[in-house]
Order: sequence, then structure tokens, then C-alpha cells
Amino acid sequence: MKPKRVKVYAPASISNLGPGFDVLGIAIDQPGDIVIAHRIREQGLTFTVVDTSRTVPADARSNVAAHVASLMMKECDPPFGIQLELHKQMPVGSGLGSSAASSVAAAVAVNALLPKPLKRNELLRFVVDGERKASGSPHADNATPSLLGGAWLIRSYNPLDVISIPIRNTLMWVVVHPHLMVQTREARTILPKSIPLTHAIRQWGNVSGLTAGLIAGDAGLIGKCMEDIIIEPVRARLIPGFSDVKRAALSSGAVACSISGSGPSMFAVTTSLKSARSIAAAMEKQFTEKARVGCDVYISRVNMEGAIILEMNTK
Amino acid sequence: MKPKRVKVYAPASISNLGPGFDVLGIAIDQPGDIVIAHRIREQGLTFTVVDTSRTVPADARSNVAAHVASLMMKECDPPFGIQLELHKQMPVGSGLGSSAASSVAAAVAVNALLPKPLKRNELLRFVVDGERKASGSPHADNATPSLLGGAWLIRSYNPLDVISIPIRNTLMWVVVHPHLMVQTREARTILPKSIPLTHAIRQWGNVSGLTAGLIAGDAGLIGKCMEDIIIEPVRARLIPGFSDVKRAALSSGAVACSISGSGPSMFAVTTSLKSARSIAAAMEKQFTEKARVGCDVYISRVNMEGAIILEMNTK
Repeated sequence: MKPKRVKVYAPASISNLGPGFDVLGIAIDQPGDIVIAHRIREQGLTFTVVDTSRTVPADARSNVAAHVASLMMKECDPPFGIQLELHKQMPVGSGLGSSAASSVAAAVAVNALLPKPLKRNELLRFVVDGERKASGSPHADNATPSLLGGAWLIRSYNPLDVISIPIRNTLMWVVVHPHLMVQTREARTILPKSIPLTHAIRQWGNVSGLTAGLIAGDAGLIGKCMEDIIIEPVRARLIPGFSDVKRAALSSGAVACSISGSGPSMFAVTTSLKSARSIAAAMEKQFTEKARVGCDVYISRVNMEGAIILEMNTK
Repeated sequence: MKPKRVKVYAPASISNLGPGFDVLGIAIDQPGDIVIAHRIREQGLTFTVVDTSRTVPADARSNVAAHVASLMMKECDPPFGIQLELHKQMPVGSGLGSSAASSVAAAVAVNALLPKPLKRNELLRFVVDGERKASGSPHADNATPSLLGGAWLIRSYNPLDVISIPIRNTLMWVVVHPHLMVQTREARTILPKSIPLTHAIRQWGNVSGLTAGLIAGDAGLIGKCMEDIIIEPVRARLIPGFSDVKRAALSSGAVACSISGSGPSMFAVTTSLKSARSIAAAMEKQFTEKARVGCDVYISRVNMEGAIILEMNTK
């Protein structure tokens, strides 16, 4: 029996992780996007967006999920058409890999309907192409964890080389998304084109320690190595209340706190759910008081599954 | 019974490990330096060098080993004097942590004679001070592995923060030391003061993968991540035959080959002793033919012990 309808959930992700700018990313449980794909008789792609906030493009030519789906259909050329519904649940411009989650959900959904589905990791290149469309350059630091789960190092884009970091998944990750919007493109233009060698050395020392800390699940090591002296000081200016929120997280017991992706979401790391809740409350309070904005709060360990098929029907 | 005479061996080390410039280092079994310390009645330090090549300063004020020993004696103030003999066996200016090995051997030897010896890791700050004397700035990337064995991340100097990288010690490290001399100070002045952010990102991606590779003992991962696009291209110019030697190593089965410390020694990584021997021969051949210099060759796993007390006598 061939599947006729599939419903896929792809999770959000935290990229950069402080010093690992543009190279590290982890998946978290929530938020995420949902794509429902139907097999239809008529060839080609039909695309609709169910998006109450109306922040993503609804036409197939501009939407990343539709772009990724049509790339896959062009290459795999199935003897049927697909009707794709993107249920956009993630905030756009949040720094949580919203476009990646949409693309990943679309890719996994389309793939599940194909007569000869590709392997999960073979979907990455389609998704990265979607990210190129969304941000102007190819990015895999959200796409890879959202697709495959876990923690990933994006070592190279040409050729694409992603490396799984075998973490000990002991820590809790707190994400606070203030209702502000930062465009990835904008957040990139303010970065320095060149940096002092001494700063780069400090940063790659921290990246090395952070990698070792993630593998060992060592909260203390992760805490001290999640120091970003290059990107965070520049991007923090785009986030009203940044210093207060970070200070609140650290004084509430977080071992580390930094910007998720290009912001404005911020994340914190701690060792228990109880601690995570009080850190989240403290961060939210600062955003509300200092930046006068509401927040969404998410708490989870690293999501190790990545995108999942929620439902699959054969009729 | 109090020890009266102690003989200590401190091993060489490979710092930088390609992309981990100034932050990563491992100890190897050989070469190394030997220090013999005698307790004597007369207070203070007596210092002699046994050095057939006569390349290190023999007076106590200029020699790093004597410097480190007197620092320790000043602070610990033992009720006796110490006569220190440095048996200089390692080549100076080789990129193998020669000054660190001398300092470490001196520190461990003096410590063993003290009425209340310090813990091994407490000796590090004395040795780092010796490195400052030798190269003009404090360095711990040779000193830490030579003192403590294993692989180390030097995260910060102020305060000094060294992090043990828990490696899976499966690989063989080949070191070829051509009979040329490169001064650490000289090798530093030619480095760029600032670098493009894109290069820094590539480098810290490689450092992350290298760290994960060392922990897993993953030869393939170490091989591809031991890519240094910032320091190696500049320092390679100081090493006659560099490209030929590197090419020979890689085509003989090495997964990686780069400069040890500030050179001119070069190291290669492989999976077996047999392979290590043929790589070493191929590298040596290139140095001999292209640079017209003789070489010393050393092959070992990572040395996990660091400095060791070879003999201790109570009379």
C-alpha cells in the first residue's frame, strides 16, 4: 500500500551556540513546523499555507517549503502530483531556524510519498538550497539538526560536510523568544569582515572546549566555553534588553546564555528542569520589563530525532 | 627517608595540531629532556648544563630550567639548596617544545625534593613563567602536555585555564625534525594581525571537528579537520621542502600532516606503526633530497604520563 497522505513535524534549532558561529547547531523539541502532503493525480505541486500570523509568503515561488518540495519533485519526478500544506507554527525571524523547519518538514513529507524515498540524510542538500533562498547564502546549521536531530558541526559547504557531534544529552536548554523580529540578512551585514587573530584564537579555543563539553555533557565546561567575543557583542545591540536578560539567566543558575541564531531569541543552559523553569521565568521577566514585549518560552533537552512523521495514511 | 637525588624525564610535545593554533597540544614519547636534581647543604640554586650541542644558555640567569627552579625555590623556600643538572637532549628551536620540556623536568625534579611537594598540576604556573622567558609571551600549549601527558586545550592565560581533552589514544604520531632552526619569536612576527571572519569560521569549524575526532580516536575526522588555512600557509615558507614533505606524508598513507609548533619539525598522523614507519621514511627522504638536511624521526602514540621520575635516591 502506497502512502497517500503524510503529516510531518520538523523541530526548531539553536544555531551558533555562542562561539560556534555558523558551524554548530542543535535541535530542540519545540517549537516546530508541520507539513501535510497529499498525493494527487495531477502532476506538479500545489501549495497552500495555513498561517494565522501571515508572516510567510503564501505563493509557491517565494516560500522555502514549496521551493524545496519542487526541487525534490523535479529531481525525483514521481508519476503523480503533490498537494502541500505548510502549517506555519514557528515564529519567522526568531533565530530558531524557522525557514529550516519549514523546508525540512516539506522535504521529509514529499520524500515519504515518493515511490523510492531517498535516505534521510540525502534530503539535506535540498533543504540547504531552501535555506539559500531564505537567507541569501546556503546554511545548514539549522537545517541539519532539524532534519536529523542531535548536535551538528557544519564543517564545509563546498562540498557540504556535516559532522555529527555525539553529545551526552544531560542538559536542559531554555529558549525565550521575545516578540521582536530580526532579519537574518540584516543581522549578518553588521558583522565585522575581519577580526584580530588574537580574538579568533580565543574563539576557537572556546569552540574546542564547547565541543568537548557537549560530548561529555559537562555543564561547567560548556558554561565557561560558551563565550562569544566576536558575534554576540555586535548582535546583542539588536536585542532590546539583552544584557538584563543574560544577567538574569546567569544569576538564576544558568551555566551559559547567548543568542540563538541571529536572534532575537536567547537561550540558556542548565542542569535540571526545575532550574530551567526559574531561568525561563527570570529571562521572560526581563524581556517584559525592559523591552516591553511578550515572550514564548520553550524548554527541552537536545532533540535527538529531528523531523518525525506524525501520521501516514494509505487512503 | 627524604629524597636526596632525583632524575626526571619530560617529553616533547606537538602544539597547535594544525588548526588549533595556540590552544591545542599533545605529549609524545620522544624526544625529551632530563634534569637531575641533588639536595645540597648550601642554600640556593646551583645550575649546570650538560649539552653536547651547546645550543642552550648555560648560565642560570638565561636558562629556562634554572629560571623555573629558582622561582619554585623562592616560593617554597626549602631549608636546603639544590644543585640542578639539565641534560639537554632535545633540539632547540625544533617546534617540539624544547624549552617546555626543560622547564617541566626542572619543576618536577625540584618539587620531588621539597619537604612538602606541590601537586603536579600546581607546577604549571612555574613552567608557564619559564615559557614566557623563553618566547616572550606565556605559553602553555607545550608545557601542559609535557607536564601532565595527554591532549590539552589552553583556553585562557588570564587566568590560566587548561582543559584536558579525553582522547581515545588509537593513532600513531610521526614527527620528523629536520636539522634546521626556527625561532619561535621569528615564526610569530610573520603571522597576520587580523584575519577574514570567513577564514576564522572555517578554522573554528575544523577545531571543533578535530576535538571531536581526538576524543573519538577517529582518524578520518582528524584527517579532514586538521586543515589550517591561517597559520600553516604562512609558516610553511620558513620550512624548505614543506610542500614535498607534506605531499609525501599524505601519499604514504598519513591522514594528516602539518607543522609541529612553530616548526621546522613536521608531524603526520596515521593508524598503525607500520604505516607510521613508511610515512616517516617518505618524509625524511623529501627533507634530505629537497632541503639537503638530515632528520631525526620519532614515532609514538600520545604520551599519557607526561614527565616521569626515572630515579629517586635517598642517599
